[in-house]
Amino acid sequence: MMADKDGDPAAQQPPFKGPGPVVTEIPATQEILTELTDLTWERTVERSSRPVAVMFYSPACVFCHQMDPYFRNYARDYKDSIQFARLNIMTSPWTAERYGIRSTPTFKFFCEGKPVQEMVGAVYPALLKKMVDEVLVHGRECAKNSTAIDYEITGYG
Amino acid sequence: MMADKDGDPAAQQPPFKGPGPVVTEIPATQEILTELTDLTWERTVERSSRPVAVMFYSPACVFCHQMDPYFRNYARDYKDSIQFARLNIMTSPWTAERYGIRSTPTFKFFCEGKPVQEMVGAVYPALLKKMVDEVLVHGRECAKNSTAIDYEITGYG
Repeated sequence: MMADKDGDPAAQQPPFKGPGPVVTEIPATQEILTELTDLTWERTVERSSRPVAVMFYSPACVFCHQMDPYFRNYARDYKDSIQFARLNIMTSPWTAERYGIRSTPTFKFFCEGKPVQEMVGAVYPALLKKMVDEVLVHGRECAKNSTAIDYEITGYG
Repeated sequence: MMADKDGDPAAQQPPFKGPGPVVTEIPATQEILTELTDLTWERTVERSSRPVAVMFYSPACVFCHQMDPYFRNYARDYKDSIQFARLNIMTSPWTAERYGIRSTPTFKFFCEGKPVQEMVGAVYPALLKKMVDEVLVHGRECAKNSTAIDYEITGYG
């Protein structure tokens, strides 16, 4: 016999209180979307063996708020293959400046700790999704088909 | 009567030396592909009203040499709408470091002086071309649908 998806409400809910608010969705996506800071950046992004998708945002940026639900959805859809994270550029300006972030939202994808793709602005969500797919298909290959820069030998590091 | 492409070799070349090397192609593409330095970057890229496509490269990077002919071809194909440029990260490390370039080749597209898209490595040329097309279609829109960061108000500028 198949159990009903929600079971018997009368057996699960306290009597006379009615159904509570549906809160399952929000904690689930919050858990899989890491909030980064200048201090946790290196450990979470640059030393990560998994691909990482980062959204650089600022709290007052309306375009960031527009994109946020899509980013959260992708974080859930791709949670098994890509780590999704956000960085508030107002409270963590060092990392944003280090990567030359000039506008928000900036979506930046990292493979083996190095940037492989970037997209800026409230782009069409389909474009962002396509980029996630491309990183999954071509990302590791890109990291392989490029030469890492050793800034020490340029005399600038 | 149509003139022969090479004209009459006997009239143009000193006798007994044979035809010279075919050099027509190279100067033509070199003209439309600007070679940037740390000193010319701001003027050519950040203050440009046209979209700019930049290839960050290093002379010893084999993947850069692989991508170079494609980039030159796109420079010619798109010369009326996008400025194409290259920056040698060994001789101009300041700009590369400022934009967090960690591998070569890195292709970075600028709209109204700000980065809008980035792609790293010896990617499939078709992917690079698609990105150029996307910048043409969505680029200005992206620059519009994002919030410029004023690093001075973050207390970090």
